[in-house]
Amino acid sequence: MKVAMIQDKIVPLDELERIYLDRGVYFGDGVYEVVRSYDGRIFALEKHLQRFANSLAGLKIEGVDIDQIRARVSRAFEAAGISNARIYFHITRGSAIREHDWEANLEPNFFLTVTEAPNDKEEKSKGIAVSTHPDWRWKRCDIKSLNLLANVLARHDAVQKGCGEAIFVDEAGLITEGSHSAFFAIKEQTMQTAPLTANILPSITRIFAIEAGINIGLDTVEKSLTPQQASDSDELFIAVTTKDIVPVVKFDGKAIGDGKPGKYTKLLIKEFRSFTV
Amino acid sequence: MKVAMIQDKIVPLDELERIYLDRGVYFGDGVYEVVRSYDGRIFALEKHLQRFANSLAGLKIEGVDIDQIRARVSRAFEAAGISNARIYFHITRGSAIREHDWEANLEPNFFLTVTEAPNDKEEKSKGIAVSTHPDWRWKRCDIKSLNLLANVLARHDAVQKGCGEAIFVDEAGLITEGSHSAFFAIKEQTMQTAPLTANILPSITRIFAIEAGINIGLDTVEKSLTPQQASDSDELFIAVTTKDIVPVVKFDGKAIGDGKPGKYTKLLIKEFRSFTV
Repeated sequence: MKVAMIQDKIVPLDELERIYLDRGVYFGDGVYEVVRSYDGRIFALEKHLQRFANSLAGLKIEGVDIDQIRARVSRAFEAAGISNARIYFHITRGSAIREHDWEANLEPNFFLTVTEAPNDKEEKSKGIAVSTHPDWRWKRCDIKSLNLLANVLARHDAVQKGCGEAIFVDEAGLITEGSHSAFFAIKEQTMQTAPLTANILPSITRIFAIEAGINIGLDTVEKSLTPQQASDSDELFIAVTTKDIVPVVKFDGKAIGDGKPGKYTKLLIKEFRSFTV
Repeated sequence: MKVAMIQDKIVPLDELERIYLDRGVYFGDGVYEVVRSYDGRIFALEKHLQRFANSLAGLKIEGVDIDQIRARVSRAFEAAGISNARIYFHITRGSAIREHDWEANLEPNFFLTVTEAPNDKEEKSKGIAVSTHPDWRWKRCDIKSLNLLANVLARHDAVQKGCGEAIFVDEAGLITEGSHSAFFAIKEQTMQTAPLTANILPSITRIFAIEAGINIGLDTVEKSLTPQQASDSDELFIAVTTKDIVPVVKFDGKAIGDGKPGKYTKLLIKEFRSFTV
């Protein structure tokens, strides 16, 4: 008889709930999004849904109705009644006996949580320190998939070092992005961030950060930085959905500028906030 | 109120079963093993448990008692009563509200299945075709983790091409291994396979394949092959726990040797089988 075992309990395999056969856990075979709300309004949901659709297509997960996802997000957000919320959702390819290749017509599994957005007041006012970590991720980081171990290990390493984010450096010695954020430098009124390639997540917050930059009179150059160039910049910041723009005041132990959030970064935070009202 | 949503159903987040908060699905934050039995005896369990311990250490998943895992595997195997069984088990770091970094003292989640080993008679007698795929995996494939999307996509591609396995080729143009197997070539009585690096899983079946090679008088060289060198070989095979040694008779469409399983490969299959009795 085929059996399964959960912790110490043996059960017939055929009686398992489908969550135990989720390809999400066997393979990370799924994609996710994180959106947030500001004062009761979900920000940039359409852009996130478009990226979600792109990620699904990247993994050839079919049969997902984006209109249905939109409706679910709205319904859960309303049910939660959290004004400044962090909404996480994922779709996995479905549940099946573990085999690498998938059968056609699996029913995708949807899961969502609504929690409070993180309180980022202190990070925004004081800035954070970041540390670099080798970019161990797979080669399709343009797909927002559930294969996030490299991100988890890098972030753990950063936290152990007292830092608020890990910044990935690839084998060519260039910064790609943060473990869960886009990374920007400002030097002489020019913002610099890595160009979008197969190794970079097309960050939604990155789009708005660039737009905010234009609005306050900064140029943007899409070019990868070395850690040396980053630490020689006038200002640094990360861009992430749950906290929008967060100043970076220390890079691998070296203070950036005067060690306080930079003047342009503060303007960007203000400008970004104007998009959300 | 914090809420979760499973398909269309909204539930309070606090009432979720822990399986829904498994870091395995959020991040692939776990490790696994596959062992098989031959005629009622589990093969090479200690080697698999040692690798499992190494994988756990690689991800800093603590508090797992390998003696307890061994006992669970034995108990489930006996309960199933399947003589030629495929035993899959994984440990994830535990269940928690989704945050990349982990809290100390999470209770790991254990999951195991016992099913019939695949019937490999036809593959063994006729051999399989393989196709190459870019190696998109992360840079720590020495850890047998649940981050397997690159493997899934490559295997799907191979199956679409009518092949039995995908063979990864890295950015340097060298073969690393199969999507779920080690890869070997034989030329002039020498077996060749990639050396063990951070990008290669230390395959248990690989150890026994090399031992079988010694026993039948073949040398082994640990050196990476190009696809061209592979397709110019006298014989090719893959080594995988569930099917031990499987001849490869076609490589990216090109017949290997006379397009039938090679004489040494057939000897290796026989020799390997002698280890399992």
